[in-house]
Amino acid sequence: MTLIDANKIVIENLRRIVTCAPGEGGPLVGWRMRNLATLAGNLCIGVEDGRVTYVGERDELPVAFADAHTHDGGEFVCTPGLIDCHTHPAFVRSRADEFALRLSGATYEEIAEAGGGIVSSTRAVRESSDEELAEETARNLLRLRRHGVVVAEGKSGYGLSLEHELRQLRAIRDAAASANMVTVGTCLAAHSIPVEYREQSGGREKYLELVTEEILPAVVDEGLAERADIFCERNVFEPDETRRFAERATELGLRLTIHADQMSDSGAAGIAAEFGADSADHLEYLSDESLQAMREASTTAVLLPGSTYVLKMDQWADGLRLREQDVCVALATDFNPGSSPVANPAFVMNLAVMHCGLKPTEAIAAFTVNAAQALRLDTNEWGVIKPGSRAAFALWDVDHEREIPYYAGSNMCIEVVTCQGWRS
Amino acid sequence: MTLIDANKIVIENLRRIVTCAPGEGGPLVGWRMRNLATLAGNLCIGVEDGRVTYVGERDELPVAFADAHTHDGGEFVCTPGLIDCHTHPAFVRSRADEFALRLSGATYEEIAEAGGGIVSSTRAVRESSDEELAEETARNLLRLRRHGVVVAEGKSGYGLSLEHELRQLRAIRDAAASANMVTVGTCLAAHSIPVEYREQSGGREKYLELVTEEILPAVVDEGLAERADIFCERNVFEPDETRRFAERATELGLRLTIHADQMSDSGAAGIAAEFGADSADHLEYLSDESLQAMREASTTAVLLPGSTYVLKMDQWADGLRLREQDVCVALATDFNPGSSPVANPAFVMNLAVMHCGLKPTEAIAAFTVNAAQALRLDTNEWGVIKPGSRAAFALWDVDHEREIPYYAGSNMCIEVVTCQGWRS
Repeated sequence: MTLIDANKIVIENLRRIVTCAPGEGGPLVGWRMRNLATLAGNLCIGVEDGRVTYVGERDELPVAFADAHTHDGGEFVCTPGLIDCHTHPAFVRSRADEFALRLSGATYEEIAEAGGGIVSSTRAVRESSDEELAEETARNLLRLRRHGVVVAEGKSGYGLSLEHELRQLRAIRDAAASANMVTVGTCLAAHSIPVEYREQSGGREKYLELVTEEILPAVVDEGLAERADIFCERNVFEPDETRRFAERATELGLRLTIHADQMSDSGAAGIAAEFGADSADHLEYLSDESLQAMREASTTAVLLPGSTYVLKMDQWADGLRLREQDVCVALATDFNPGSSPVANPAFVMNLAVMHCGLKPTEAIAAFTVNAAQALRLDTNEWGVIKPGSRAAFALWDVDHEREIPYYAGSNMCIEVVTCQGWRS
Repeated sequence: MTLIDANKIVIENLRRIVTCAPGEGGPLVGWRMRNLATLAGNLCIGVEDGRVTYVGERDELPVAFADAHTHDGGEFVCTPGLIDCHTHPAFVRSRADEFALRLSGATYEEIAEAGGGIVSSTRAVRESSDEELAEETARNLLRLRRHGVVVAEGKSGYGLSLEHELRQLRAIRDAAASANMVTVGTCLAAHSIPVEYREQSGGREKYLELVTEEILPAVVDEGLAERADIFCERNVFEPDETRRFAERATELGLRLTIHADQMSDSGAAGIAAEFGADSADHLEYLSDESLQAMREASTTAVLLPGSTYVLKMDQWADGLRLREQDVCVALATDFNPGSSPVANPAFVMNLAVMHCGLKPTEAIAAFTVNAAQALRLDTNEWGVIKPGSRAAFALWDVDHEREIPYYAGSNMCIEVVTCQGWRS
């Protein structure tokens, strides 16, 4: 977790550099995902003012770097700092107890119906002080960072009221600076119907109105998020509610992402495509129809096999089918205290390779350049290593990048290197 | 990976200490495994000359520590440094290529028959220089250490000749010092029949004779290992060969451990018990008869669910049955480049909790005090935190030890702290 405080920096002694950047920026789809651009040799990266300005052989480093600060890359493999495009970091307590319950046979839905699940995370967020919420959010970001992540999308969704959704989004914004990371806030007030609304007649309707008429506008006013997210699933939000939500969010100028087709096919990914969403996420039960719609709308498919693993589901998202249709595929940890207490992108890559049909290099593209695409970040700057890109790198104690997903459930990220000015 | 260079040390500001030590040393079996001894409060550990001499409240620290070096425990949870009682660290190249092959449908046995698997690791070891072998072995130990391990058993078994088995065991011995860890060498010359013997008539017999009449005696002469191991499985070594091997090893004064009942029930765990082996390892297909024999012989059951996961086997070892019979249960990574490229004990704990029926605290006992028992180390000194124990600790960025297996496939070990003199 090194922050190098200099204007001109050379990271030298690198064995391989996975640039993720063949030619002009853009997501990698189909066969291009597999042929991840990589350099090998005695390599280095030159950085000026937080941006990469040289990538290549040490012998050919421009003389302008003669007085640069040098950092030893330890003969490690270098990738862009990872981008985790779907996380829930603003939680204040683990749900390790519930994890044990689930292993005794209770399903995720049964735990939710019994008042566990999201309800307990909501209680914890609402009871927390601002200080505690900020500290725990930063702690969760640092947990990701120790596994190679430098950019994390962060969803609210445990506040479930005007006050507490805003508190979560502020915590995500503020934690970025203290963790020396970049966060992309997403308002997920439509994560669940809060308990106090479930018990009153018409409560469902009233909560959705609170979300669309008060929470989303306040989020926009305060500039806390550019995106809105909704959990479309049976027993959560129905497709027609999802459409209403999407219309209103779009009207307010928010971009969309949708928790889609995780437990069943509700056509949610198709709705995401219909509204030109950044991404549809989960997709274990994605239909062919929705898949085609996503392709046409250039909506990124974000796969979250960490939750499939933790929930012990039989159905994994099918990466092969997405690749064949040239849909942009990203991976994310879904880091959250319930369905995915997984802070390690390399483990998610391993699951994607073992169960979703991705190749090892595809899994790396899915956590870098394609994850940038999922967040509509400029793929000339983010998730790639090339002149003009942000100077944030992950170094890996491996001989070849294909070993990152291979060391199953292990963390071979040995250092995250960031250079002064990389965030701005 | 801190080594504190002082005679008198206080590690303070600890939130919880998992001592793993209820009363006098010994393995934890049955219900005792679940009730892992733990302290909570504002805690500290006092260390003198590499041994723990105080564990408890900071307020009650003896005045003798007034001039001690202090180390901030960061409000983390502290466990004994982990003991990984089954690893294959003396490898020089990954088998990430083969991993991809297996995912394309080839079975472990098919890859072995096609000359992949152990054969390729053997070739790499034999072609390596002593320097390379030493470096890669130390690198592998450090990979384990970054995930909390301080003591690793290390098996040979990729040399498969007198010269190269000895080279591997020397590398394991020497790497311990350079990695600031403790290793327990085990001769696994009976890991596989090497290719050059497979092709000649009577080659099988000749190789086993080489092992029992030349390699094991040489290992004993040079003092490179106190234990011998054999892979008893169909297409590897048969039960009658395993018995002959066990007899000879015992005669030479070596203790035993056996790769047993991983792919099928061959009665191997029963043979382990018959010879009073330290442990029988794997045990996916353990029979009731062998289980009873293990119980009576006090042979530890070492479960290796990392390999079950990587090989995508349907059959997991059954921890419940072992607990009911009060058999001592340990867990290990089985870290190796083929069937278990898993360097993270916490991931193995997660698998054991999710698939083998262990409780989270049982999984921690299985990587500390019970792993010490599996190696016949003194459980008053190893795998526990109490007066007289070795001063090597793992600090975890969690609120409670049950979160160590819960953060699935992630590494929450934030620091390994060792104190001068802890190894000797």
